[in-house]
Amino acid sequence: MTNKEETIAKKTVFDGKIIQLEVHDVQLPEGKSGVREVVKHPGAVAVIAVTDDERVPLVRQYRKAPEESLLEIPAGKCEPGEQPIQTAERELLEETGLQAGSLTEIGGFYTSPGFADEFITVFLAEDLQHKEQALDEDEYVTVEMWSLNRALSEAMEGKFRDAKTAYSLLYLAANKHSIISSS
Amino acid sequence: MTNKEETIAKKTVFDGKIIQLEVHDVQLPEGKSGVREVVKHPGAVAVIAVTDDERVPLVRQYRKAPEESLLEIPAGKCEPGEQPIQTAERELLEETGLQAGSLTEIGGFYTSPGFADEFITVFLAEDLQHKEQALDEDEYVTVEMWSLNRALSEAMEGKFRDAKTAYSLLYLAANKHSIISSS
Repeated sequence: MTNKEETIAKKTVFDGKIIQLEVHDVQLPEGKSGVREVVKHPGAVAVIAVTDDERVPLVRQYRKAPEESLLEIPAGKCEPGEQPIQTAERELLEETGLQAGSLTEIGGFYTSPGFADEFITVFLAEDLQHKEQALDEDEYVTVEMWSLNRALSEAMEGKFRDAKTAYSLLYLAANKHSIISSS
Repeated sequence: MTNKEETIAKKTVFDGKIIQLEVHDVQLPEGKSGVREVVKHPGAVAVIAVTDDERVPLVRQYRKAPEESLLEIPAGKCEPGEQPIQTAERELLEETGLQAGSLTEIGGFYTSPGFADEFITVFLAEDLQHKEQALDEDEYVTVEMWSLNRALSEAMEGKFRDAKTAYSLLYLAANKHSIISSS
């Protein structure tokens, strides 16, 4: 009952800077057919960085789609030919000026598999050194250094409104004893 | 630096069954302008249901966008005029046949605020009673009852590949002592 839905026909409706939109006619079980709206995205990484003195950089940024200023962990799209771990190192450095001595993949998720193929790979960054922030030309963000404890308790109260940020902090909170105590 | 990006002009590129796609020309700081690709979505709810004997229903479903069969908690789009808690009750019952005696909002998140306005509100369902599953006509899912402990430990290892599912289970794992022990 959870078989692959073969594409019978598809058309690309939009080819943008960040996403492409395809509409697929698909074969369903019992000889039926259906239509699937598919947003194609190159994939992204997100980085939860924890400094030696247990602080976490969060990036405040206006997001046009939800029309809201959100507090998020550093993140960005994978560039062509780039491995996720390279994207993680680059985005953390560009957005916060922090260079990671250690990057560990802790998980990842489809943001919205009902209509998009975007997968975010999540890294834990440690052994951080201060370098220089280098934002993209049209990137307007401010960095806030939060105490890890405050970030974890707000995440545990469901207060972070961005998927990758809530995921990463809840992951650390749930694994607290094994991860935080070893760093 | 995180000011609102005013829309100067926009056009709707696609108006589908689940999403709409808009392209906005926006005003940026320093007199600059930019283009934002915006996927509009009606919003959704997700339900992490925990039975009295500490089991959790997970729904396995083929997802066309990622071309992958995923294990997810029950979820669905908000219908026009429906409150999130009503969507939660309805989707849980339709997909799993479980009726919730108690529904508590535990959090919520934008799935991908860089290009979409989709917000998922997450509920914890308890005091569950078995009724009859009532899937939509083109919904092909199978329900698996997992032990809560197994679901929590796989989430803590980063194994669930769907945002709402990982979020909800990590939330329960992080809050384990206060939530699970009281149920």
